[in-house]
Amino acid sequence: MLSKQKLIELFSKFPTIGPRTASRFVYYLIKLPREDFDNLLTAMKKLREDTRICSFCFNPYEKSDNDSPLCPICRNPSKDKTILCVVEKENDLLSIEKTNKYNGLYFILGGVLSGLSENDIKKIRIEQLEKRIKDADFKEIIIATNPTQEGETTALYLQRRLKPANIKITRLGRGLPIGGELEYADEQTLESALEGRK
Amino acid sequence: MLSKQKLIELFSKFPTIGPRTASRFVYYLIKLPREDFDNLLTAMKKLREDTRICSFCFNPYEKSDNDSPLCPICRNPSKDKTILCVVEKENDLLSIEKTNKYNGLYFILGGVLSGLSENDIKKIRIEQLEKRIKDADFKEIIIATNPTQEGETTALYLQRRLKPANIKITRLGRGLPIGGELEYADEQTLESALEGRK
Repeated sequence: MLSKQKLIELFSKFPTIGPRTASRFVYYLIKLPREDFDNLLTAMKKLREDTRICSFCFNPYEKSDNDSPLCPICRNPSKDKTILCVVEKENDLLSIEKTNKYNGLYFILGGVLSGLSENDIKKIRIEQLEKRIKDADFKEIIIATNPTQEGETTALYLQRRLKPANIKITRLGRGLPIGGELEYADEQTLESALEGRK
Repeated sequence: MLSKQKLIELFSKFPTIGPRTASRFVYYLIKLPREDFDNLLTAMKKLREDTRICSFCFNPYEKSDNDSPLCPICRNPSKDKTILCVVEKENDLLSIEKTNKYNGLYFILGGVLSGLSENDIKKIRIEQLEKRIKDADFKEIIIATNPTQEGETTALYLQRRLKPANIKITRLGRGLPIGGELEYADEQTLESALEGRK
């Protein structure tokens, strides 16, 4: 295959990117000054070298001298370790963290359920979530999936599945506009959603 | 700077990409299986190694055994070398080529004029275009900039500047929806625009 076609194919797998934008990326890269191109490659390699995935919440973090398998949030002693917030993806965690109104732990599901087949369920980290809950002593689980159809399906499924653990399960308050995406919500909307959780 | 922040900054310079999508790219790369990540890096390097910019039209093309400095379009003997189509960018050339209704040469300006200052004018390849026209024997120049404000400014400027060459200058017919982008037009619209040029 031509190297242009190959790369367009690879860029088309990037989130939100279709073949047309992918082909623009290719032309952008072709025209990029040599130095900028090398910087980009170096930054990509460095990202992979420097990044670890947290063994508790699955949030990526930069390696440091500290050789902890936990991310800075999970190893922060001032966090309330009796409350767990379950989100779909990394950017959702960041959005909630930015409100400064939540002081508990997180868990990144790594996706949502589009259906309830065994295959769908295997795609997200439900088993790992159950293990975290079993091994710890949470008083509350906040299910903070997006207010989309798939987010709702996932939340309802989680509520049903986690019920036997007998822990208070809450959802984010409906300050969020239906059909929207959590990562695009402004901080105030997210704050009221956190405060109005039920 | 953290390697994540650095890479978000670099991805934000990609066409159509803002910081939010750039940060999604970073998470995508972090989670990509090692092999896929390596394939991506290899494909990016290969693109740069394999690609040349055509010395006539500035269209990038893959190097081959043939050591020609011209792209396959410019060195195709069946092309009509008396007609030149001036486009803003590479994807516009591809869109016109796909109609199979144009059999002449191309020239990629590499941008549009947002103003008429000397600095604006230096940003696109007007001098090179004049040189191509001076060195060849064109009977017609089609100015195929986008029907946007900047595309119009560029077209009017080119018409004025190329007038002394005393060659027929045409524009694409207004089958194109105003405000749209050439690269998103369907082939039929582009065909009628080519046929209805004036």
